Amino acid sequence: MITQAFTPISESGRNRLIQELSKKIGNPSDSVLNLVRSIGDDCAVVRSDHGRFLLYSTETYVEGVDFDLTYTPLTHLGYKMVSAAVSDILAMNGTPESLLISVAIPNKISTEMIHVLYEGLIRASDVYKAPIIGGDITASQGSLVISITVNGAVQEQSITYRSGAQIGDAICVTGDLGASYAGLRILLREKAVWGQEPVDSEFSPDLSEYEYVVKRQLLPEARTDLIDTLRTHGMVPTSMIDISKNALQDLMQVMVSSQKGAQLYEAAVPIALETRAMAEELEEDVVQYALQGGEDYELLFTLPEKDVNRLVNHFKDFVVIGRVTSKHEGFRMQLASGEEMQFDLEKLA
Amino acid sequence: MITQAFTPISESGRNRLIQELSKKIGNPSDSVLNLVRSIGDDCAVVRSDHGRFLLYSTETYVEGVDFDLTYTPLTHLGYKMVSAAVSDILAMNGTPESLLISVAIPNKISTEMIHVLYEGLIRASDVYKAPIIGGDITASQGSLVISITVNGAVQEQSITYRSGAQIGDAICVTGDLGASYAGLRILLREKAVWGQEPVDSEFSPDLSEYEYVVKRQLLPEARTDLIDTLRTHGMVPTSMIDISKNALQDLMQVMVSSQKGAQLYEAAVPIALETRAMAEELEEDVVQYALQGGEDYELLFTLPEKDVNRLVNHFKDFVVIGRVTSKHEGFRMQLASGEEMQFDLEKLA
Repeated sequence: MITQAFTPISESGRNRLIQELSKKIGNPSDSVLNLVRSIGDDCAVVRSDHGRFLLYSTETYVEGVDFDLTYTPLTHLGYKMVSAAVSDILAMNGTPESLLISVAIPNKISTEMIHVLYEGLIRASDVYKAPIIGGDITASQGSLVISITVNGAVQEQSITYRSGAQIGDAICVTGDLGASYAGLRILLREKAVWGQEPVDSEFSPDLSEYEYVVKRQLLPEARTDLIDTLRTHGMVPTSMIDISKNALQDLMQVMVSSQKGAQLYEAAVPIALETRAMAEELEEDVVQYALQGGEDYELLFTLPEKDVNRLVNHFKDFVVIGRVTSKHEGFRMQLASGEEMQFDLEKLA
Repeated sequence: MITQAFTPISESGRNRLIQELSKKIGNPSDSVLNLVRSIGDDCAVVRSDHGRFLLYSTETYVEGVDFDLTYTPLTHLGYKMVSAAVSDILAMNGTPESLLISVAIPNKISTEMIHVLYEGLIRASDVYKAPIIGGDITASQGSLVISITVNGAVQEQSITYRSGAQIGDAICVTGDLGASYAGLRILLREKAVWGQEPVDSEFSPDLSEYEYVVKRQLLPEARTDLIDTLRTHGMVPTSMIDISKNALQDLMQVMVSSQKGAQLYEAAVPIALETRAMAEELEEDVVQYALQGGEDYELLFTLPEKDVNRLVNHFKDFVVIGRVTSKHEGFRMQLASGEEMQFDLEKLA
């Protein structure tokens, strides 16, 4: 028997594995004429006709890893996954056009439950005007697994990569951060209190007090309103990403792709009152909710100062949280206390 | 507690669930101008510019359901999944252009194993000239799960649906059938003999005697050669499907979509000598291997008689296995014994 190397993914790290695989795959744009950008941004980008770029993104969600059916209603789950998929298209300044959805179904999930899941998927596909045009239904062992591919498009002159941030640009973010994580914290607390309910039972504690944060966790909305406003007024961000996993890591991705640094202002990070109340109740750090909680599906983007002044006339729901600096200045945050903190890019990656 | 209906998928059936969900999703082509065809064929079809149609297909493979790592080398698995994906594009008479691949990885699978899997994925993507342009890596509980979305294209005048078969057309199939299933049978027999080996050990019984059928199971090739020949000589099948799950069911799909019947000739079904030998050794019915075994990834298509005569001058690896008849004649097969058998469409569906 040959002894083989066995490095668990948890040890080498997901991001490192993605980097290694990307290198292995190589840069297909050398061989495929119309491929503009592949792995390393929110979407793959393929050139079509008349200056139109096609956008593709795919993501897989596994029960027990990415979602928990004990506190996630299936309609909400469907809606949330479509919001997350659409958010990747928006992060390229694009418009979602269609969805392909594959579902692998374990025995414990009934036909009725799949219908409920599809109600959420279809409702979101209506809201975002991205119809479900194909997919697959297959069996699974143990976990429900859902894969979503979203197709979109953007005009060449509007496409926004992670890599275009310029020194002096304002770092902006829509909405507020940390609410989704606050919602997750309260749901996890209630789950612990109520005990592990069977998957098909009604889990409905009174969460009306926490409505805002719970809704942000279970039914996030992708920020099409920002993209529509930018388009209407002919503005294009220099870089953009959506906040899916972790705001700090997402910002770091933009900085690394753009080969720039960043100066953040802690006091400027937008946090809702409901999120602050939740963190206080649980005696936790609300800034950590905001910067590392993830799943807010807000858009993080960089804009030249003059465009910030223009945008603010047409769109109110964003704030400036920092400035793009030169690469050698690193990634820093001025804390509310006045102190300055330096982030370790290696650790964030 | 509210008692809810619970119908297992196994009871209602996968095809029925897909039909129900398709009805629920509705026909998005009413709302989306450029959507030509959605659920119900091998690919979704979206109109692009200059008479070009874009093709999309997605599929999810779950360990323990769709593949077994005890006898499937990971390079082979990667190659096979890409062949299967590409085959869906070919079934529309299209050309594959790019792939998006998501992998959900359980703890038992190492970084090294994922690299090996990607070697297979990349090798196939090179062979089919369809680069991997995006994807996702995520964690899984228990099973390895792989989702592949394939993008392709075809000119409007060449697109081939399941629905175009005409009375009198020849029913043709490339290559030979049942070999993949014969390969599966021998691998399962060896697995039983060798016992359940751990996933990272070397499972390598001497299968050289069965090389052809084992290769057809583990490393199937999508039939780009047929599609290339049809294009070169300006021929377009009236209908087409790839043989993925079950040749009889696949043919039935074509007949139902086309609202036609079929007359098959058992003696004409192409079966390799190696497949016959295997079935004989296991004392099993080789015609069942061929017609219901699946995973051959051959192309099943219908052609007017005059085109059959033209095609045969340029492409040798296909045979005529029957004729398209009117719908009320049903789905029949003339057995080698001379008897005639009538298939129950309800049961096949």
